[in-house]
Amino acid sequence: MRISGPRAEEVLKDIFVPCRPLNRFVSHRLYYGKIVTSQGQTLDEVLVAFMKGPRSYTREDVAEIHCHGGSVVLRQVLDLVLERGPRLAKPGEFTLRAFLNGRLDLAQAEAVIELIRSRSDSAASLALRQMEGTLSRFVHGLSERIADSLALVEAYVDFPEEDIELPVVDQLLADMGGVVQEVERLLDTFDSGRVLREGLSVLILGRPNVGKSSLLNALLGEARAIVTEIPGTTRDTIEEQLVLGGVPLRLVDTAGVRDTSDPVESEGVRRARAKAGTADLVLLVIDGSVAPNEEDLLAYRACSGRPTILVVNKADLGQVELAKPFCDLTRVGVSAQQSSGIQALQQAIVEKAGFGSRTETRESVVISDRRHREALLACRRCLAQFIEQGQGGASPEFLSLELQEALAALGQITGETTPDDILERIFERFCIGK
Amino acid sequence: MRISGPRAEEVLKDIFVPCRPLNRFVSHRLYYGKIVTSQGQTLDEVLVAFMKGPRSYTREDVAEIHCHGGSVVLRQVLDLVLERGPRLAKPGEFTLRAFLNGRLDLAQAEAVIELIRSRSDSAASLALRQMEGTLSRFVHGLSERIADSLALVEAYVDFPEEDIELPVVDQLLADMGGVVQEVERLLDTFDSGRVLREGLSVLILGRPNVGKSSLLNALLGEARAIVTEIPGTTRDTIEEQLVLGGVPLRLVDTAGVRDTSDPVESEGVRRARAKAGTADLVLLVIDGSVAPNEEDLLAYRACSGRPTILVVNKADLGQVELAKPFCDLTRVGVSAQQSSGIQALQQAIVEKAGFGSRTETRESVVISDRRHREALLACRRCLAQFIEQGQGGASPEFLSLELQEALAALGQITGETTPDDILERIFERFCIGK
Repeated sequence: MRISGPRAEEVLKDIFVPCRPLNRFVSHRLYYGKIVTSQGQTLDEVLVAFMKGPRSYTREDVAEIHCHGGSVVLRQVLDLVLERGPRLAKPGEFTLRAFLNGRLDLAQAEAVIELIRSRSDSAASLALRQMEGTLSRFVHGLSERIADSLALVEAYVDFPEEDIELPVVDQLLADMGGVVQEVERLLDTFDSGRVLREGLSVLILGRPNVGKSSLLNALLGEARAIVTEIPGTTRDTIEEQLVLGGVPLRLVDTAGVRDTSDPVESEGVRRARAKAGTADLVLLVIDGSVAPNEEDLLAYRACSGRPTILVVNKADLGQVELAKPFCDLTRVGVSAQQSSGIQALQQAIVEKAGFGSRTETRESVVISDRRHREALLACRRCLAQFIEQGQGGASPEFLSLELQEALAALGQITGETTPDDILERIFERFCIGK
Repeated sequence: MRISGPRAEEVLKDIFVPCRPLNRFVSHRLYYGKIVTSQGQTLDEVLVAFMKGPRSYTREDVAEIHCHGGSVVLRQVLDLVLERGPRLAKPGEFTLRAFLNGRLDLAQAEAVIELIRSRSDSAASLALRQMEGTLSRFVHGLSERIADSLALVEAYVDFPEEDIELPVVDQLLADMGGVVQEVERLLDTFDSGRVLREGLSVLILGRPNVGKSSLLNALLGEARAIVTEIPGTTRDTIEEQLVLGGVPLRLVDTAGVRDTSDPVESEGVRRARAKAGTADLVLLVIDGSVAPNEEDLLAYRACSGRPTILVVNKADLGQVELAKPFCDLTRVGVSAQQSSGIQALQQAIVEKAGFGSRTETRESVVISDRRHREALLACRRCLAQFIEQGQGGASPEFLSLELQEALAALGQITGETTPDDILERIFERFCIGK
């Protein structure tokens, strides 16, 4: 149990009886004793710690009570604390206070919840680096470059008659062009960042009876951790979340696209294609013991355009030669029934997803949050307009405005310019006590 | 995460990088920093504490790591710790070590799990007092009195020809008679202790259509906390666990005894009587708007012998005069449908259960564990034999033997003489990490 605020020490003193006499709490020290009601009834033996602000998570004074556990005892101690004035924290309120008191910026605060929610090692590592401030520092660097240019432009705003000197304009355009490049590089990391965070969306596709379900089960059997089975966004899919070879996957079962077997180019194929369109990767399953037929071709057409691995199932029953277009696809032979070839498939998925080579995801700055992407897109838009207007010889006032907006957009990432309602929505996603 | 044992500090040093340089951990101090792998990858920002034995829960050196939470991060940090040699704790192993290292005796260790599992304030309070050693101190006091007598008896063992002097025998018999009285007083607390811990078993009984289900729902509606609905021990009952006026109840629904309405003294009544026989309290429900009939009488006979409250339902529809045997019962008028009279019923249950007057449950020593009861019964048996043989002038050897066995029986409560397999069974009930 954690109490944050100026009265934390007073409340702790009021309910905690240390085993040895104690004048005052030394900050960051564990004390052994009892929680005792004002009627003298002991509720639990506990360890407590008092952390004097600003050396605490929220930068306020924080008191921590470590109980034995068990719902009744926790409720009793909680009631005792609440009787003395503190109120229950809202979801994310501790982290919100850490943000408001300047210990974390918004991107770091958002990373706390991502860290807690992360479902794979790579997602946790990504969140942790964001929490440590890699993204924030990078964004601050860009902000400073824009702010420097803004200062230059503003120097001319007071002299409306005067145009900006040409060498200065060239310098400004070059500088902001450089910032745009950096912003674009960061935007490019969104796809891999999103996959790291949300998992790679993999669609299993194929005509009926080629062994899609067995393949799903075989992949689930190989998985290090099956996280959960959740209903898909539409009623006719279910997603299995799992971690395969270090890559978080969201395997989408295509129960709903079984009617791709419909001989006419029908609703089934249209739906399958729509699903494939949102997948990061398609596993096109065919029966390796017989030659591909019309239905297989329909399934192939449904996944056109997306990264696809051809999974030749029943590989143990003898292979047929594959003609076009199947022979052009990356191919893995498996026997889903006998779980053979699954590791090779796993490897192919990891490679196709580009995880083998993407070293940047381990070391450099990556964005994974749609909110951050929006802010960067807005920043890029403003800077592009700045460059266009600068080339057209616009007045300093207009140029200054674009730079100010570009700065404000970046400020949304670190929380300097984020509106209250957005803040509220961000911290609502936290659990109580964080 | 908690690491206990001589290598705790070494392991912590190996994986923890403090934010400020650190020569050694000061015991009971919280340090802020990071958990870092040997490859230099940061896994989490944490607070850690090192507690130098014997000033720790297990009396061994203990290292604690406070992570942000989230299953992936916890698993990563756990893996890192395990790579360095420590193994996973078994359920209850921390408390087992605290016991083996003499920080807690067995009765206190057992109270830890009772505290965590407790479902009501009174059960938690009972467990806590046992954890603080009230039971252990009382049992120790009895053991010392027996040990003193044993020392006296043993002094004669070396002189087999010599009888114990008469005044000494009288003194011994009086002393051990006193101990027997104390043991019996303690045994008498078992019923209330058991109720505090397990809850008062309340059976709702009555012929069909008198409103048993509505009464159950009305009581559930008044309850401060409904703990859970669990299947009964037999297939034809369900138990609702709830806390009513501070008293933990196990309300047993008598779906299975509906056929008490069978006009002949049948299987139904036999079953109802069997159920009533194991209940602490029976709520006999009748319809207050009509005179009791044959079926009501059958229901009455089913609860004969057990503490019973007559619940006159539909009290709002006008009352009929009650004849014998119903008029002799404690009576409460309710309207289950309108939830009126439920608080009065609640009060009556609390009083009938004796909770109103049982001040001993708040202050004095209480046993609630069947294992403790067995041990006390064995002790009483040995002391009774000692007294009988002492009166019969038995030889010191025999008398010594009885006292030794009485001592061993008491030692089972505090764990001095508890066999390993019993210890194992006790600590198995704990959860991992406690």
